[in-house]
Amino acid sequence: MIMLTYSEIQKYLEENRETELKTNINELHPADIVQIIHELPVEYHNRIFSLLNDQNASDVLPELFDEVREEILKNIQQQRLINIIDEMETDEAADIIGDMEEEASRNLLEKIEEEDSETIKQLLLYDEDSAGGLMQTEIISVLQTMKRDEIIEYIRANIGEVENIHYAFVTDDDKKLVGILELTRLLLARPDWNAEKIMEREVISAVVTLDQEQVAHLFRKYNLIILPVVDEENHLLGRITVDDIIDVIDEEASEDAYKMVGLENEDRVFTNPISSVKKRLPWLTLNLFTALLVSSVVGLFEQTIDRLSFLAVLMPIVAGLGGNSGTQTLTVITRGIALGELTIRNTWRAIFKEVTVGIINGLIIGSIAMVIAYLLKGNIILGVVLGTSMICNMFIAGLIGSTIPVIMKTLKIDPALASSVIITMLTDIGGFASFLGLATVFLKDVAVL
Amino acid sequence: MIMLTYSEIQKYLEENRETELKTNINELHPADIVQIIHELPVEYHNRIFSLLNDQNASDVLPELFDEVREEILKNIQQQRLINIIDEMETDEAADIIGDMEEEASRNLLEKIEEEDSETIKQLLLYDEDSAGGLMQTEIISVLQTMKRDEIIEYIRANIGEVENIHYAFVTDDDKKLVGILELTRLLLARPDWNAEKIMEREVISAVVTLDQEQVAHLFRKYNLIILPVVDEENHLLGRITVDDIIDVIDEEASEDAYKMVGLENEDRVFTNPISSVKKRLPWLTLNLFTALLVSSVVGLFEQTIDRLSFLAVLMPIVAGLGGNSGTQTLTVITRGIALGELTIRNTWRAIFKEVTVGIINGLIIGSIAMVIAYLLKGNIILGVVLGTSMICNMFIAGLIGSTIPVIMKTLKIDPALASSVIITMLTDIGGFASFLGLATVFLKDVAVL
Repeated sequence: MIMLTYSEIQKYLEENRETELKTNINELHPADIVQIIHELPVEYHNRIFSLLNDQNASDVLPELFDEVREEILKNIQQQRLINIIDEMETDEAADIIGDMEEEASRNLLEKIEEEDSETIKQLLLYDEDSAGGLMQTEIISVLQTMKRDEIIEYIRANIGEVENIHYAFVTDDDKKLVGILELTRLLLARPDWNAEKIMEREVISAVVTLDQEQVAHLFRKYNLIILPVVDEENHLLGRITVDDIIDVIDEEASEDAYKMVGLENEDRVFTNPISSVKKRLPWLTLNLFTALLVSSVVGLFEQTIDRLSFLAVLMPIVAGLGGNSGTQTLTVITRGIALGELTIRNTWRAIFKEVTVGIINGLIIGSIAMVIAYLLKGNIILGVVLGTSMICNMFIAGLIGSTIPVIMKTLKIDPALASSVIITMLTDIGGFASFLGLATVFLKDVAVL
Repeated sequence: MIMLTYSEIQKYLEENRETELKTNINELHPADIVQIIHELPVEYHNRIFSLLNDQNASDVLPELFDEVREEILKNIQQQRLINIIDEMETDEAADIIGDMEEEASRNLLEKIEEEDSETIKQLLLYDEDSAGGLMQTEIISVLQTMKRDEIIEYIRANIGEVENIHYAFVTDDDKKLVGILELTRLLLARPDWNAEKIMEREVISAVVTLDQEQVAHLFRKYNLIILPVVDEENHLLGRITVDDIIDVIDEEASEDAYKMVGLENEDRVFTNPISSVKKRLPWLTLNLFTALLVSSVVGLFEQTIDRLSFLAVLMPIVAGLGGNSGTQTLTVITRGIALGELTIRNTWRAIFKEVTVGIINGLIIGSIAMVIAYLLKGNIILGVVLGTSMICNMFIAGLIGSTIPVIMKTLKIDPALASSVIITMLTDIGGFASFLGLATVFLKDVAVL
């Protein structure tokens, strides 16, 4: 395979040898062009993109990071964009146009081929996170009565438009989906067999409004590479291919990891700093207020701390271990929900398990801490107070780390939003209150150690 | 599609109407049988599994959760297991056998068909997280000189063994991979064309030792559904299908989320509590020692706290915000590394960005905290001390949250291991030390407020 090194490209660009670069870069695989653009400094993006032929440009554009694509679209000439979009599959064209300003997109839709334009307008009506938002309308669909050679002829005539077909969909006269036909089976079929005889009847399909996470579950569960999309009455509308589902799975995994720490999905490695700041500030502000709440709980025990300042030295231990233990539970549970392992029926078993683990870990870690505190400070009561409060707090951690995401799921709020900020606030409060509370009661007669 | 409800199944089992249940359950899609087993209480697992015919059992077994499969394998009769394994594809058989005790697996390998047994032994030599560990050896491979109809005949004769073929691989006389042939293209080819003319020459392939994460990147980057696997000399060995890659992507995403909070991958929602405790304890113990380290830093300022106990009330705010801000940066960077967005060339840009975001967020959140502290305590110097220490700590958070995973990646340690425990320890120390340190210097003449 031809490959251009990074420094070769930079040399071409610096020496303005664009004709040569144009020839060479267009021979690369579009995925490699995408990687090259992402690795080059921003100032070269438009120049490189302008060298691509329409076919390559149409493959590259949908795969670029959002912020890179936006920058390129800002500088592109309209006729060039129309040519590129004409080369795209409808789902990708709809994604690009859907991200544009309303006026620009209306303008564009008037100028591209009418048939495509109608399809794209239709696709834009679906929620972008639904099966409709993922599907493409370029499909091979045959009637159940068609004979083997008729089907082959039909495919020959229509394959030009469709990449990675692998399957034809079989419908009745009413355009309702009745089966799916793996094209390899055509090679094995006898000439007198019709679609109905060759096809697989048990079709897994998705209704057009199904959420993309559920669509990904279908692919995962049934090991699919292609999924037909239908309307409520089972009329065939389009298909979703597995490569788009891999993007969905990546996106959903990022989203879960992100939500746990209060990040928005668009806040990526190279998002510009100001927009990252804007996206993170609301959550950090919320965090400031949860921290003030925690601080006010500590404030309740200021008199105790005033007398026994070493409590302030030890208290971060109780809160820290509880926080980490709670985050572990939270991660296990939200990941279980995301992968569909947790269902309504087995939830109680999961919560019971996490609480048990919290208590046992608390007993072990609490005992170690108890011994250490006794050895360091020579006071057995202090050791018991520290150990006991750690056991309490790790029990609390197991309980809230598992119930909060489950409750949120039941209320149809995304469980990943039970983010570390809430869990940490509660384990901080649990840790400080139990430790300082027990100390206030049991260490009241102790003089400064 | 036929579906059995949960309560129907439970009724069958309780009334011992196993013959009826056997008929009904074997008509389900294997993926639905998997779901039913996972939702039923543990005591029914063996009974349900024993009702499956060999074909269904061979499809169900590889898809079960590890702990469910282990339990079933403990109770299965050897002849039954042999029958099931004979129905499996080689990659799945190797996964099952590879997880068994050495003696049991040797025993089993002697009893299954010799051809399969040899292949499986070969597959077991590859690292299970490499391309070799993922590949299956059931492929359609044709010579470049074969004509269209010869190829079709060959596929007809050999398709029985292979599911989801979609592609044939083209080799030269020396078994070296020279091209890939989308079977749909055969429908369009003329009779006198040979494989060399129909095939695609630019094949993306993986060397057998390639790590599974890199294999997943190839699927992601080139939108593949099937990837041929070759040895160092480009001899064709097998193929990997996209459904296995979806499992890899799920597994890697779980692994990253898990490592960030010190969890092991096998610690799932329904792992038994004792084994979860064992898996989590080492990390929590490490965490206890990092907490003691943090505590000893606070201990350096015990005299200051002794005099000004309200510092103990405010100090969790500085540490908490720093910790959360650091975890945000850590998540953005590790996710960027996982998805291949961060490369050596653009790393500095990413670190610079995160530090900038940390400073700006610190300035804003620190100023708000400054005002709040002034309003609450009426002391301007205290406000300035709190605000300044928050700015310092959020700068530290941006710096370590981005550099630590990058350094770990450079040292070829998994960056997700730069887990919250390390980041939180450093931001805790940064927060407590800067706040209490500044307070010791600037509030030394202040009497108790």
